[in-house]
Amino acid sequence: MNYVKQFGVKPGSKVDLAKVAASFSKVHESHEHALPEIEQYSQKLHDPQYLMYAEDKRWLLICLQGRDAAGKDGTINRVLGAMNPQGCTVTGFKVPSKDEADHDFLWRYHRQTSAKGQVAIFNRSHYEDVLVVRVHDLVPKEVWSKRSAQINDFEKTLADNGTHILKFDLHIDPEEQLERFKQRIDDPARHWKISDGDYAERPFWDVYTQAFEDAIGKCSTEHAPWFVIPSNHK
Amino acid sequence: MNYVKQFGVKPGSKVDLAKVAASFSKVHESHEHALPEIEQYSQKLHDPQYLMYAEDKRWLLICLQGRDAAGKDGTINRVLGAMNPQGCTVTGFKVPSKDEADHDFLWRYHRQTSAKGQVAIFNRSHYEDVLVVRVHDLVPKEVWSKRSAQINDFEKTLADNGTHILKFDLHIDPEEQLERFKQRIDDPARHWKISDGDYAERPFWDVYTQAFEDAIGKCSTEHAPWFVIPSNHK
Repeated sequence: MNYVKQFGVKPGSKVDLAKVAASFSKVHESHEHALPEIEQYSQKLHDPQYLMYAEDKRWLLICLQGRDAAGKDGTINRVLGAMNPQGCTVTGFKVPSKDEADHDFLWRYHRQTSAKGQVAIFNRSHYEDVLVVRVHDLVPKEVWSKRSAQINDFEKTLADNGTHILKFDLHIDPEEQLERFKQRIDDPARHWKISDGDYAERPFWDVYTQAFEDAIGKCSTEHAPWFVIPSNHK
Repeated sequence: MNYVKQFGVKPGSKVDLAKVAASFSKVHESHEHALPEIEQYSQKLHDPQYLMYAEDKRWLLICLQGRDAAGKDGTINRVLGAMNPQGCTVTGFKVPSKDEADHDFLWRYHRQTSAKGQVAIFNRSHYEDVLVVRVHDLVPKEVWSKRSAQINDFEKTLADNGTHILKFDLHIDPEEQLERFKQRIDDPARHWKISDGDYAERPFWDVYTQAFEDAIGKCSTEHAPWFVIPSNHK
């Protein structure tokens, strides 16, 4: 199966997330059945990373986006964990600090971009500034509406200077999210991951969908493609 | 006299530095005669900076470029020194460190851009990457030739997010440079400022001129204008 073709978002295309089956799964009956293939793909991540590290010439930037409980942390841990941590940096972006907010919105992301030979993983990314910022009117529309173009310029400059950029939206549906929230409440080890704030975002589901569709549609480019990954099944 | 009009480079215009009289001076017979006017303009820098600092909303970025001995350090000291240092950062950009060189060329400059209410002064700037880098073939032409557009995108994003950008080329002629080199050799207090490297750059004068003309012509924009300042007379 050609995953790139199946899940990649063609530049210039209109994105309709309702048409993406969040509960897509391949032929595997269970997580255990999928393990050999996961192992195989992990190796496929590991080997080129080693070469890239040795070559010391190019960079890789991976942006992970998705709703709360979509599986961003788990993906970093299990999938991207296949890579050598010495050649990898992971940066989680939360509410900006005073110093970060005092600069243009791309400042804090640019600081954390990869160095030569390295892989930088963004757990949430500059797309937050056209997602949560837009949904909750944290800046006026005239400000956030210019950001897709600014993001495209930024990513183009990174790409022209040796950065390979891959962007993934982990796509779940609202029922799956609710189910995961419940699991977090029931599991003492993961209780800390849930807060009232997570539930407070749920009424904005459709507004987020619109923001995701716009961001992904406007910013999926040849040099920095978006992939929408059905993520109901981990 | 409208200095903005006289020394500002119109967006889209072709720059011919040979036509700029490096030895321009106004009506003042000497430095002493000019002092009252310098004092007056210093105040004009100081007061709005105070307001901007109090407002805590906008940023100012000043880029200073110029040949060796053109007067960048002196300008920062005497002219920009009129501003309150608490609201000001000065960053001098020299040969990039290993870490800086391991990122895209704009990375180290973006890190040092102003925060809200602040003035950032760049002593040499991202334009070095289309000047010295071009003159000495530090990267292939296909790389540096894309940078004017990348710089314009970068500055546009900064401007759209609240940064006022002003760029100054301190323009001297080769005779004046040679004279200043000699003064540096003769003056024990400034001897340290001269090195063989400064003389080694002189045969590249015309190649630099071409690079300056291109950079200034392509990157003087409404939101980030270039000014060519005749600087033979301090």
